[in-house]
Amino acid sequence: MRLIVCFLSLLTVFGPGKCGNILVWYNEGSHWINLKIVLETLVDRGHNVTVLVPDASLFMKAKDSDRFVYQPFNVSMDEQEMRDFIDEFLHFSVYEMDQLNLLQIFDVVLSDPIYACSDIVAEELGIPLVYTFRFSLAHAAERMCGQIPAPPSYVPGAMSKLTDKMSFTERVFNMLFYLSQDALAIIAWKKFDNYYSEYLGRPTSFCEMMSKADIWLIRTYWDFEFPRPFLPNFKYIGGLHCTPAKPLPKDMEEFVQSSGDDGIVVFTLGSLIDKMPKETSNRIASALAQIPQKVLWRYGGEKPDTLGENTRIYKWIPQNDLLGHPKTRAFITHGGTNGIYEAIFHGVPMVGIPLFGDQPDNLAHMKAKGVAVVMDNLKTMRPQELVDGLNAIINDSSYKENAMHLSRIHHDRPMKPLDESVFWIEFVVRNKGAQHLRVEAHNLTWYQYHCLDVFAFLFTILTVVLYVFFKMCKFFIMRCCFRSKRKSKKE
Amino acid sequence: MRLIVCFLSLLTVFGPGKCGNILVWYNEGSHWINLKIVLETLVDRGHNVTVLVPDASLFMKAKDSDRFVYQPFNVSMDEQEMRDFIDEFLHFSVYEMDQLNLLQIFDVVLSDPIYACSDIVAEELGIPLVYTFRFSLAHAAERMCGQIPAPPSYVPGAMSKLTDKMSFTERVFNMLFYLSQDALAIIAWKKFDNYYSEYLGRPTSFCEMMSKADIWLIRTYWDFEFPRPFLPNFKYIGGLHCTPAKPLPKDMEEFVQSSGDDGIVVFTLGSLIDKMPKETSNRIASALAQIPQKVLWRYGGEKPDTLGENTRIYKWIPQNDLLGHPKTRAFITHGGTNGIYEAIFHGVPMVGIPLFGDQPDNLAHMKAKGVAVVMDNLKTMRPQELVDGLNAIINDSSYKENAMHLSRIHHDRPMKPLDESVFWIEFVVRNKGAQHLRVEAHNLTWYQYHCLDVFAFLFTILTVVLYVFFKMCKFFIMRCCFRSKRKSKKE
Repeated sequence: MRLIVCFLSLLTVFGPGKCGNILVWYNEGSHWINLKIVLETLVDRGHNVTVLVPDASLFMKAKDSDRFVYQPFNVSMDEQEMRDFIDEFLHFSVYEMDQLNLLQIFDVVLSDPIYACSDIVAEELGIPLVYTFRFSLAHAAERMCGQIPAPPSYVPGAMSKLTDKMSFTERVFNMLFYLSQDALAIIAWKKFDNYYSEYLGRPTSFCEMMSKADIWLIRTYWDFEFPRPFLPNFKYIGGLHCTPAKPLPKDMEEFVQSSGDDGIVVFTLGSLIDKMPKETSNRIASALAQIPQKVLWRYGGEKPDTLGENTRIYKWIPQNDLLGHPKTRAFITHGGTNGIYEAIFHGVPMVGIPLFGDQPDNLAHMKAKGVAVVMDNLKTMRPQELVDGLNAIINDSSYKENAMHLSRIHHDRPMKPLDESVFWIEFVVRNKGAQHLRVEAHNLTWYQYHCLDVFAFLFTILTVVLYVFFKMCKFFIMRCCFRSKRKSKKE
Repeated sequence: MRLIVCFLSLLTVFGPGKCGNILVWYNEGSHWINLKIVLETLVDRGHNVTVLVPDASLFMKAKDSDRFVYQPFNVSMDEQEMRDFIDEFLHFSVYEMDQLNLLQIFDVVLSDPIYACSDIVAEELGIPLVYTFRFSLAHAAERMCGQIPAPPSYVPGAMSKLTDKMSFTERVFNMLFYLSQDALAIIAWKKFDNYYSEYLGRPTSFCEMMSKADIWLIRTYWDFEFPRPFLPNFKYIGGLHCTPAKPLPKDMEEFVQSSGDDGIVVFTLGSLIDKMPKETSNRIASALAQIPQKVLWRYGGEKPDTLGENTRIYKWIPQNDLLGHPKTRAFITHGGTNGIYEAIFHGVPMVGIPLFGDQPDNLAHMKAKGVAVVMDNLKTMRPQELVDGLNAIINDSSYKENAMHLSRIHHDRPMKPLDESVFWIEFVVRNKGAQHLRVEAHNLTWYQYHCLDVFAFLFTILTVVLYVFFKMCKFFIMRCCFRSKRKSKKE
C-alpha cells in the first residue's frame, strides 16, 4: 500500500522516483517546528522517516505524531557537558545504529548541523547527508566548511545587525567580526576535531566532516536575505512552513470585525517569552491603549492595570491565521525567523522588539527592507516609542507597499519552498547524493584556495626577472662608461 | 483572443500573471537558434515578441516565422567597422525606437550581451533587461560586470581548457589567463566606454551599463559546468532546446535497424563545416570503415573514396532524433554547446573533434566528466586514433554510465530549463525587474569590493599601535637601565 502511495505521489509532482528511508538527526525548538513540516510531506509522499530523539528533548515528543518512527536514545543531560552528549551520540551511532541498520538500510541523513555529529553517522552508514540550516555566527561554518564565498565588503556577517549597504566604519566592523568569529570558531571546533580524529582513527576535523554534506537547505530566501554569492548545493527554502490563513475561532473573528476600518494589530513575543515584569506589561498596555486599532496580544502573565478597551489578551493565538486576515494592519514581534516569514508571506509590516539570539539581526534585515520599525529593547522602550512605531508602519503607506513587495517576491518563485526542500531530499535519495553540485574548493588548502602559492611563485619570478634585468642594465652601463672613460683617457 | 490565450496559459503553469511586450535584441548563429525556442514559448503564452533584426543577418530571417514582429534596421555591413555598427544601433535606439515606443510600451529587453548596446536601449526605455549568455573569455564580463565571484584556484576561465581540478602549474596558468584577459577586456571595452559616456552625457562604462541587467540566463547547467559560486540573478538554463526524439524518416530508420546489436554512430561537425579536403575526408572514412557500427555522417562534400559499406553520407540529419534513438552508441561531434547538450539529454558518449571557438573548451569539460574522448584536431588526426576513440567510448562501459549519469542530472532538476527561462522573463515583466536579486557589489569600487581600504586602515592602526608600544617599551627599558646605572654609580 505504502509503495503504491509512494509511486502515485511521486508521479503527480516530479514524475516517477524511489521511496527512501530518511534518518533525521535530533534537533530542537524552532528548528524542529520548521523541519517537521518537511517530514510530514515526505511521509505523505511514501517515504519512511526515522527521527533520533533524546529522552530529554523539549520539542520532539513521540506522542506528537505517530507518522514517524521515533528512535529514542539516552543522554545524561544532568551533567550537561558537550563531551558526554557527543559520547552518547557516538556510542549510539557505533553500537545501536547497527541494529537499526539491520532493520532497514537508510538512504539519507537529514540534520541541522547546529546539533553536531550527524556527519559522522552519515559517514559510518556510507550514505549522503542533507543539512537544514539557518546560519552560524558570521556565517563561519558556511564559509569555512561549506566554502560559500562571502566578500566582507557587502555580505554582512550573520548576527552583525549590518546590511549589504555598509559605510567604511561598518565594513571595518564587519571585517573584524568575520576575523574574530573565525578565530573563535576554530578554537571552539578544536574539541570536536580531536574527538572526530580519535573516533575515525585518522586525522580529520569537524569542518572537513561538515563539508561532505550533499545539500545545504538554507531556511531563508532573497525576501529576507540580502543578495549574496552562493553555491550550487545551497538551496534557499525560507518560509516553507507558511500556509494561507484559515478561518479564526468565532469570538476572535467577532472581535477582529469590530475593529472596522482601523483594523487590528497582532502582538506576540514568541513561545519562550510568556510573562514579563508588571512594570513592563503596564508600559506596553498603556501604549497599545493609545492606538485606534484593536489589538490581539498573546500573553500568559497577569492582566496589566493599564490595559485598554481595544486590547484583548490571549494565552494562545492562531498567529498565521491572524497575520493572513484582511483586517490585519501590523505585527508586533520579537523577530523570530518563523514569525517574520509568516508576516512576509501575508505582507504585514512589523514593529520589532528584539529579545535575544538572531532576533536583532533578523529585524535589522526587515528594517533595511523598509517593512519594520525596530525598538531598542523591551526593558527601556518608552510607550510613546511603541505608539510612534505602530503609527508609522500603519499610516506611512511605504511600509505596507514594501511588505507587499516582499510578499510578491516570496510567492513568485519557480517552486514553493516546501516542494523545493522535498525535491532536493528526494534528489539525494534517487541519485545517491549530489556530489556534482559540490565545489572542488573542498579539496584545496586555504593557501591554495586563495592562490597564495601562485602569487608567491609569480612574485618570485617577477623579482628574479627584475633583478637580472637591473644587473644586466648595470653591467652594460658600466661597460659603456668604462669604454668611454678609456677612450677619453687615450685621447 | 490573445488576452484569453495569455490568461489561460499563465494559469496553467505559474498561476495568473500579466502578458508582456518583449523586445529582443539582434543576435546570430547558435545564439539565435537557442533563443528562438524561448521566444516561441513566450508567444505560445500570449506575449508580444518584437525582434530587432539587421538587414544583413544570416540567421534571423523574417520569413522563418510570422509569430514574432520583426523590426528591421539598416546597417552598413560593407564597412564592417564596429563603430559604424554601434552608430546604427544607437541611431536606431534614439530616433526610431521612439516610433516603436508609440506603438506599444515594452516591458523587457531580452538580449545576448555578446551583441552590444541592448543595455543602453533598456536604459533609454526605462525598462528591465534580461540577458541570455553563454560566456565571455575567462568569464571577464561575468566577473567584472556581473560581479560573479570566481576563485582562480578552482574556477577555470572559460576557453582555458582547464577543469576544476588543477595542478599547481595549471593554477598558475589559470591566474595568468584571468589577469591577461581582464587587461585585454578593459582595453577592448575602452572604446565602448567613451561611446556610452558620450551618448548618455555622463561618465559611464560598458561594464556599468551591463551590470544593470536584472537576470542573466546562462545557457549551461551543472551537467556541463564544474560547480562554482554564482549569484541569485544568475540562472543556469542549459539544454532548453533539447526535446525527446521523434521517429526517423523511413529509409533512415531501416538503415539504423540494420545495425543490429552493434548499433549506430552519429557523425556531424556542425552546420558551418560542410566540406573538407579530400585527403581529410578519406582519412575519416577509412577509420569509420573499420568499426562494426553503422555510421550516419552529415557531410556536404564529395563522396570519399575510402567510404565503407557501413557508412552513409547525408546532406542533413535529424541530429536530436538520431541521438535519442535506442540504437545510438556514440556521437562524433565538433563540440558545439547545442550538440553536446543533445548528447547529454539522451545520454550518448562522444568522440570530440574540436574545430574552433569554444569547442576545445566544451570538449575538455566532457572529457573531465568521463563522457568523451577528444582528438587533437581534424588536420593531424590519424585514422587509428578515431577508431581507438570510438572503440573506447563504445566498449568501455564507464563512458556510457557517465553519460547516463549526466543525463540524469540534466533531467532531474526542479524545473525544466525552458520553463525556468520563461519563468524569469515573465517574473521581470510581472515585477518590473528583479533588483532584489542584484548584489550590492555593483555599487562598490574595486578596492572597496576587495576590502583594500579596510585592510590599509587596519594595517595603519596596527603599525601605529606597535610603534607606540615599542617606543614605550624602549622608554621604560632606558629609564630602568639609566636608574640602575645611576644607582651603581652612586654605590
